[in-house]
Amino acid sequence: MVMNSLGREVPSHINGAPVEPYRGAFAPVDASRGAPLSLADQPGGGRSKVGGTLREVVEDAVPDGGWVSVPHYYRDDPTALTLLIDALRGAGRREVHLLGMAFFGSHAEVLLPALADGTLAGLEGNVYGAVAKAVAAGSLREVVVGRSHGSRARALELGHRRLDLAVAPVPIADRWGNANGVEGPYSAQVGPVALASGDVRFARRSALLTGQVHPGFLAYHPIDMAHVDHVIEVASPGDNRGIGTGTTDVSRMRRDPERLRIAELVMGVLRASGVIRDGFNFQIGSGSGLLVLDEMLREMGERGIRGGFTVGGTTEAHVDLLEQGLIDVLLDGQCFQPSARSFRSLREHPRHTEVSTSLYYSPAAKQEGSGLMDVVVLGASEVDLGFNLNTVTGYDGVLRTGIGGGPDAAAGAALTVISLPLARVSRGGRSAPSIRERVTTVVTPGEVVDVVVTEGGLAVNPRSSSPWVPRLLERAAAHGLELMSIEALMAASTAKALSMGPLMDSPRFTDQVVYAVEWRDGRLLDVVRRVE
Amino acid sequence: MVMNSLGREVPSHINGAPVEPYRGAFAPVDASRGAPLSLADQPGGGRSKVGGTLREVVEDAVPDGGWVSVPHYYRDDPTALTLLIDALRGAGRREVHLLGMAFFGSHAEVLLPALADGTLAGLEGNVYGAVAKAVAAGSLREVVVGRSHGSRARALELGHRRLDLAVAPVPIADRWGNANGVEGPYSAQVGPVALASGDVRFARRSALLTGQVHPGFLAYHPIDMAHVDHVIEVASPGDNRGIGTGTTDVSRMRRDPERLRIAELVMGVLRASGVIRDGFNFQIGSGSGLLVLDEMLREMGERGIRGGFTVGGTTEAHVDLLEQGLIDVLLDGQCFQPSARSFRSLREHPRHTEVSTSLYYSPAAKQEGSGLMDVVVLGASEVDLGFNLNTVTGYDGVLRTGIGGGPDAAAGAALTVISLPLARVSRGGRSAPSIRERVTTVVTPGEVVDVVVTEGGLAVNPRSSSPWVPRLLERAAAHGLELMSIEALMAASTAKALSMGPLMDSPRFTDQVVYAVEWRDGRLLDVVRRVE
Repeated sequence: MVMNSLGREVPSHINGAPVEPYRGAFAPVDASRGAPLSLADQPGGGRSKVGGTLREVVEDAVPDGGWVSVPHYYRDDPTALTLLIDALRGAGRREVHLLGMAFFGSHAEVLLPALADGTLAGLEGNVYGAVAKAVAAGSLREVVVGRSHGSRARALELGHRRLDLAVAPVPIADRWGNANGVEGPYSAQVGPVALASGDVRFARRSALLTGQVHPGFLAYHPIDMAHVDHVIEVASPGDNRGIGTGTTDVSRMRRDPERLRIAELVMGVLRASGVIRDGFNFQIGSGSGLLVLDEMLREMGERGIRGGFTVGGTTEAHVDLLEQGLIDVLLDGQCFQPSARSFRSLREHPRHTEVSTSLYYSPAAKQEGSGLMDVVVLGASEVDLGFNLNTVTGYDGVLRTGIGGGPDAAAGAALTVISLPLARVSRGGRSAPSIRERVTTVVTPGEVVDVVVTEGGLAVNPRSSSPWVPRLLERAAAHGLELMSIEALMAASTAKALSMGPLMDSPRFTDQVVYAVEWRDGRLLDVVRRVE
Repeated sequence: MVMNSLGREVPSHINGAPVEPYRGAFAPVDASRGAPLSLADQPGGGRSKVGGTLREVVEDAVPDGGWVSVPHYYRDDPTALTLLIDALRGAGRREVHLLGMAFFGSHAEVLLPALADGTLAGLEGNVYGAVAKAVAAGSLREVVVGRSHGSRARALELGHRRLDLAVAPVPIADRWGNANGVEGPYSAQVGPVALASGDVRFARRSALLTGQVHPGFLAYHPIDMAHVDHVIEVASPGDNRGIGTGTTDVSRMRRDPERLRIAELVMGVLRASGVIRDGFNFQIGSGSGLLVLDEMLREMGERGIRGGFTVGGTTEAHVDLLEQGLIDVLLDGQCFQPSARSFRSLREHPRHTEVSTSLYYSPAAKQEGSGLMDVVVLGASEVDLGFNLNTVTGYDGVLRTGIGGGPDAAAGAALTVISLPLARVSRGGRSAPSIRERVTTVVTPGEVVDVVVTEGGLAVNPRSSSPWVPRLLERAAAHGLELMSIEALMAASTAKALSMGPLMDSPRFTDQVVYAVEWRDGRLLDVVRRVE
């Protein structure tokens, strides 16, 4: 183990391969190692790529111990993953590694048996639910590497992670491998699919699993034929009902008074800082952020403000912003709420633009979208006195959720606002403060966090270099905002927890590392160990 | 010198670097040498790339003897080239190499002095007019390598040609390097600019020369910020009046009865072969092809036929096809006729799609657009008994024009039709047949040519494996087509030439190689020597 610049002990090797410790949010990366594109050996004219099975592709392209990938834009839907695992098993492959984006509850019943029977050796990606539980319990033989969306794109672009096969489920593709997520059978429409374009571009071999083969040339093709090898027609590539559950369910959020209060305070921060003004760019993601977005939309309309662009998991509220002229451009990297209207807007509105994860988030890009944000509002499970964020482990120290795009957004934005409740209560009635001396796991370094908002007040990071913070400090009181030190907020957090029930015991960890947290440059921020 | 598979002697080295002889139209290429992307060393959040001068960029990025590139989509307009050469000269650079796409007459007064004074060491690209004349005269110190559009894209993608700096003129760009060719000052609008996207993507450094800096985020960005380093505002990046001259001038063509007759016969070939049917894809380029397109449009309307897609230098006639529902998709890789209507269509019509040269033509792509063509109609200056095509040297053996996308289109299409007049007369009143025993220079191998059409009849390549040829042979007579052997066509060509005036003398060549013709895979088809 070695110590990184945050004072966290991290391994020097993971699953046998060397890794580097975190060296600061914007440390240089070695871009000279750019990955070569996957290209063909002169394809010859116009052969259809339709035909064969994924199993045949796997037999041809994936060695034992090889690397395959699958995207997560259908979110909690196991269809594509099931097809991939079945193909690997059918081909008799052993010890294959899976580069995912996110694995949700419904993926567990496919993944865990494949990991148990040796079809899979290990995973990289964001883990949630039962998959996270299995990882946390130390039941995988290999350490799982967790990456932000931008870090994953960077790993592919710089050749830090090479893939033997990229599998991309899509509702529609033409015979030659052009594909999009907004035509074809509605239940399989999923909005932007450019999230998978880096995988397809850089993998040695790529296969689309398509719900429909378009009879002509697909005019709109965020995934293009230049880098696609196989088009495999399947009964269903996925069902968009897998999207829009959990923290992306807006209607559930409106019934939570604490979330409403937090959203109100976040709006106060945005108002006081002055960041809501003509041309400002914002990314307001899942959790209470969706309530903030809703309120901000109303306020922008009243004040006649037109924003620049927004980016992030897209809901109908984003499309409203565009259609009402409240933003100039909607960048769409992922769907958080399937709707025919959003899909039609992405296809037809000239300023509703699909963006790849690379353009949106990658720290290897000469400019990424998240770096242009004036303000982002993000959630966290814990914040510490260094403003470091934990978004993956619970109060009990158990790995529970994934990383997503939060670290990229926090690093990029001029004003990064974190919203979370002061304390939470477990199912067993034990409580825990969410502002702590030291977070269980660092997922985003405090260096890139400016303001922490709870229902009991807010704290500004004294190390913040945000251009919006001086005005926020000056006008907070006038906006009825209770500014506190992070230490005072920690005290309030502890008091609130105590008022809610007996405190949870501090977790006791074994030495077994089960999960490693990469910073977006590929260096290690922290690890998660198995709880005793 | 070594002999290639067409029996042409080609050098084993050009300008000191090893080259391979042509080995067949679809010989394998080593795709394992894919070029790495140009990526940043963590850019940090949202810095504007606007500022500085091209000279400063050159000073920083281009060494003496280095490689720079500039695209040709403004065609016969020297603005961007002049800015680049001035920057190189201002920075005191010596012996720089220029990867162009095409150099036209107006570029000569910029290029030739820079070559003469040692600012430039040499060129790669298509040469026309006075630039071609200087190359042909042997006045450059280095051999010029001529490439098709696809071959150029391949050279960048496979890392066969590395660039120190790519310069891309655009009418509009935002502060971070997103750019397009269809917004900004109208005189600088140029339609698709994705022709330059490979240069920008793979060059170590890239600079946009923009007519306007867009105040927000440019929603439509065929050139994107992920690979752009500098945005330099210029008084004018180019004037679209440089487009639409020479062989792209449709109105001039209509006054030529011979061209009209050839177009009629080509239409006969298309009708007899049955290739004009629902869903067929076609590329019908410059020269008589534009007249064919016009006639075909009328016929498709009458017969109620809806084509698949077309691709190629775009004119308003292509937009008509799309708007009248006569084609499903318009792929747009280059503008051949500037018009506000075409530019608006590219920006707004959901099935008018900008394509990069890679997607459109590259033999390294897992599928390129040109490989999906059912039929292409192309011009040539000479055809020989092996159906080989010359499109670069005149009857006097002098290098005169560039290669363009013709070889890529010919290689890709299921039915490749070549149209040319039987004979031509020089300004001095001497005539020359265009069907010959052996073309002066092979630019496209006969292997990929199916039918040759002249005003005096047509010949089908007996080696053709086109699926459309059997029906053409069967129904030619019924369509009033005079099918001849290529030998008979050569006799007619000679007779016609003789009837037009005294024959031109055969050129006599020195040993000096002035120009090399790459096949699309990078192997050498032929060379052009200096005429005595």
